[in-house]
Amino acid sequence: MSTLKAVSSKLAAEIDKELMGPSIGFTLQQLMELAGLSVAEAINREFPLKSAGEKKNVFILAGPGNNGGDGLVCARHLKLFGYNPIVYYPKRTEKVEFYKQLVNQLSFFKVPVLGPENNDNWLEYLKADKTVCIVDALFGFSFKPPLREPFATIIKEVCDLQDKVPVVTVDVPSGWDVDDGPVSEPHIIPKILVSLTVPKPCSQFLQKSSVHYVGGRFIAPEFARKYGFEPFEYQSCDQILKL
Amino acid sequence: MSTLKAVSSKLAAEIDKELMGPSIGFTLQQLMELAGLSVAEAINREFPLKSAGEKKNVFILAGPGNNGGDGLVCARHLKLFGYNPIVYYPKRTEKVEFYKQLVNQLSFFKVPVLGPENNDNWLEYLKADKTVCIVDALFGFSFKPPLREPFATIIKEVCDLQDKVPVVTVDVPSGWDVDDGPVSEPHIIPKILVSLTVPKPCSQFLQKSSVHYVGGRFIAPEFARKYGFEPFEYQSCDQILKL
Repeated sequence: MSTLKAVSSKLAAEIDKELMGPSIGFTLQQLMELAGLSVAEAINREFPLKSAGEKKNVFILAGPGNNGGDGLVCARHLKLFGYNPIVYYPKRTEKVEFYKQLVNQLSFFKVPVLGPENNDNWLEYLKADKTVCIVDALFGFSFKPPLREPFATIIKEVCDLQDKVPVVTVDVPSGWDVDDGPVSEPHIIPKILVSLTVPKPCSQFLQKSSVHYVGGRFIAPEFARKYGFEPFEYQSCDQILKL
Repeated sequence: MSTLKAVSSKLAAEIDKELMGPSIGFTLQQLMELAGLSVAEAINREFPLKSAGEKKNVFILAGPGNNGGDGLVCARHLKLFGYNPIVYYPKRTEKVEFYKQLVNQLSFFKVPVLGPENNDNWLEYLKADKTVCIVDALFGFSFKPPLREPFATIIKEVCDLQDKVPVVTVDVPSGWDVDDGPVSEPHIIPKILVSLTVPKPCSQFLQKSSVHYVGGRFIAPEFARKYGFEPFEYQSCDQILKL
């Protein structure tokens, strides 16, 4: 069997299931903490804060599922790193108590979290001239089209802005097909992609000028090989690796 | 009120309670993941792996409570960083399901975890000439004397070894009084102390040649000030700061 450079959406779901299954026993809270931290680390690597005067806003779009949860964790770490994160979290999944706790944690850090009540004015909070990057944490590898509102509109607005403010995508560009890449126009063109655990097939549709990281440093080498890919050679205690 | 450089055991307990209370809503799993990661980062900073041939064992002593849990998480990250951790976890708290999951995770990474069945031979696994450091993750800030078995014997054995193999202590040197420092002979003399969130008063009894880090980067500046200490100025995305 040859070495794959990416795993399909189906395999990615199996990996997640096994990581959190009875034999390995990772919890969602652990994996999300490390995943969100790795995205924050990639942002810090690409857009280091040099002086107090420069722009330091990061605008985080958090979706209703685990990809959004990664974004909420990322926002908290960015605040600790000295950035000024602003989160837009338009659709909340009430059944997962932990998502509410992630929002509480952001309040503790005085990170603004916009909600559905801001559906008509959220863009006013995204000041392009002060914003280092937009974090696309709307949908991950389990996304299935079609895009529903308010997300279709949100993505369209991001597409209008992405020439001015770089987009950092968590795992899968929102609106893309996980396996087939961009399937509609306009679509998000990430400047930075942080693939979690292992890239998904759509990563091959990244532009050549884009930067691709893998993050979420929490699997054993044998586990990677079992799923048909070589383990990534992270350095030192980095939580990310540039591919 | 003047700025404290350390908080008492009583205040440390209040800080933990508030961090995991309803208003902030951190979970034990999140805080333990970040705390354990920070200890692994300190070890990587002090004892970087340079070549494949050199020694890379780390012997982790994990106690029955949260300090031990930090040690279990630390072991997993050390394995990911390229070290060869070996854990001795002689007394397990069955009522906390999450500790069992942390042990499962170590199995996934093929990290040996010795248990009570090794009480008579655990030292055979600690090969001084191959071991970078011993991690003392036996007891934290809620420890109250007297030391019971098997821990009294374990600590005595560590004291016999600490001239040959440096000890890295998680938060509070085991056997020390959190507020009053070493209270019995022999006692552990850490070469490295990683204080979590904020140093405890006993840290003033460290030897001058010891290295002191603070780790566990998860509080807001206002929260630090509320408890009477200045926030620590962590750099970039470091999870530790040398004091």
